[in-house]
Amino acid sequence: MKIAILGSAGMIGQEFLAQVSAAEALMPDVTALIACDVVKTPTPATLAERTTDVVGNVTDAAVIKAVLDHRPDCIIHLASVVSGEAETDFDKGYQVNFDATYALLETIRGLSAAEGYRPRFIFASSIAVFGPPFTEVLEDNFHLAPRTSYGTQKAMQELLVNDYTRRGFIDGISLRLPTICVRPGKPNLAASSFFSNIIREPLAGKEAILPVDESLRHWFASPQAAAGFFIHALTVDLSQMDHNRALSMPGVSATVGEQIEALAQVGGSEAVALIRKQIDPVIEGIVSGWAPNFTAARARALGFEADWDFMAIVEKHQSRFGG
Amino acid sequence: MKIAILGSAGMIGQEFLAQVSAAEALMPDVTALIACDVVKTPTPATLAERTTDVVGNVTDAAVIKAVLDHRPDCIIHLASVVSGEAETDFDKGYQVNFDATYALLETIRGLSAAEGYRPRFIFASSIAVFGPPFTEVLEDNFHLAPRTSYGTQKAMQELLVNDYTRRGFIDGISLRLPTICVRPGKPNLAASSFFSNIIREPLAGKEAILPVDESLRHWFASPQAAAGFFIHALTVDLSQMDHNRALSMPGVSATVGEQIEALAQVGGSEAVALIRKQIDPVIEGIVSGWAPNFTAARARALGFEADWDFMAIVEKHQSRFGG
Repeated sequence: MKIAILGSAGMIGQEFLAQVSAAEALMPDVTALIACDVVKTPTPATLAERTTDVVGNVTDAAVIKAVLDHRPDCIIHLASVVSGEAETDFDKGYQVNFDATYALLETIRGLSAAEGYRPRFIFASSIAVFGPPFTEVLEDNFHLAPRTSYGTQKAMQELLVNDYTRRGFIDGISLRLPTICVRPGKPNLAASSFFSNIIREPLAGKEAILPVDESLRHWFASPQAAAGFFIHALTVDLSQMDHNRALSMPGVSATVGEQIEALAQVGGSEAVALIRKQIDPVIEGIVSGWAPNFTAARARALGFEADWDFMAIVEKHQSRFGG
Repeated sequence: MKIAILGSAGMIGQEFLAQVSAAEALMPDVTALIACDVVKTPTPATLAERTTDVVGNVTDAAVIKAVLDHRPDCIIHLASVVSGEAETDFDKGYQVNFDATYALLETIRGLSAAEGYRPRFIFASSIAVFGPPFTEVLEDNFHLAPRTSYGTQKAMQELLVNDYTRRGFIDGISLRLPTICVRPGKPNLAASSFFSNIIREPLAGKEAILPVDESLRHWFASPQAAAGFFIHALTVDLSQMDHNRALSMPGVSATVGEQIEALAQVGGSEAVALIRKQIDPVIEGIVSGWAPNFTAARARALGFEADWDFMAIVEKHQSRFGG
């Protein structure tokens, strides 16, 4: 199996490559990897010989051509501008998060007509396709009503993936990812940053700001679980799926208070003491527009698996990055 | 008020112009009309002096520029390839039904940035944005799951209208039209054609084929009601609408049997005798994917009005075209 990864140098791309390297014995034969990102992709040593780098932006037709020249059996499309940037830079958001995918699908359609090429196309969507008012637990048929340009772009891409699949140009699936937690790296200015900060920073002996009330509930997956969704999507049997190929992925629904309890069990009370509560009404306003819980029934029935609970999320982070 | 109509020579565009001409005393002051279509638009005599024709395709940037050079206060966007053609000609469907709208909105965004231009943008969407399985009556928050390229394109355009409105580039609204009945003209090969044929042809003394069972239920608006939605949308107060500017329009839910009862009342048993039932499993399959009934609660609350019942639909047709 030849796998192309667009956005391979990002958090999920890197975790995906690490899991492929670690679990090769359990996977279909990976004969080649095409790693595409704006920088050269760090690749595990066991995969280096089989990996071809395509360095460039997915908005560049030459980059898309260079990836498709390999005729990958599977295309994992992770390349995206994040929510905050898509909001502040309208042009860049639509160019990267929509126009590039549309052009990519059109190029595949050309190959489909010319030679019957029909790759599995695994698209990283997001729960940002949904907007309030929410039900307590969102069913799989909750209506699309994004509140951001990012969510709008993700929803439009899902619709294209469904239509191009129905027409036989790709074998597509869209995975709506929960908020990823614990993100490695440094705190940033994204409104969702605190969900990871309040775990990662105290475990590293550093202070973290909590800008919302502990009662806030949200929907999480570890980077490890997220990469696992894409591994599973490589080979899952989609022949029995209905026409809607967009799936809300399973996750863990937890309040901020439950996050902190899990931190206490892993890092002790001295870790919890490093959280400083400082309510930020702007951030509270933004995160109140995010969904708290999902059944994810269709995805679970297809074998997609979430983290066990929020403790498991913290432990996975600690075993990878912890002291 | 300067009004631009894209697709002004089509069925709804023509009915819109007829209603503007007939009801000017009840309307805001129409100072200018910009009529845009691939052919020269037939225009009522009372409006001719105020009407500027732009003849050309909405896929042509020069045509869009010629329309926007007038800086219309309202843009009514009816230009579209129909469902069947969007299915058989994939390229043309996306070019006309999506790419042209995206380019149009981008051009408006440029004017918005340069000079604060922000027109009301009234987009003709369709109940084809929904797909089965249906509930008995679809609520306004029924999920988007189109089963055709046409429905996909309409859903993507709705998402753009919402996002461009939220960002302040337009004051947008999408009107999801029911199936229009009774369509004037001749029977055609569209799967929905029979809904109009079985009324229009017998009233003209001609035979019509009924390819489905009388128990089939569907959702209708007359061309007159549809044009009325656009008249109402010119001035309706949208300031209290939530972020989702896509509205399922009110309509009449009727079975084919109820259609035939209405025909009998207007045309008598001799008209009904001209309907020849000849089940077509292909057409039955297609129309089973169409929604039967809607609450249209949000649209009704905003003052959009449907035909009274299916009798009213038949009578409107008869008074316009009947002998």
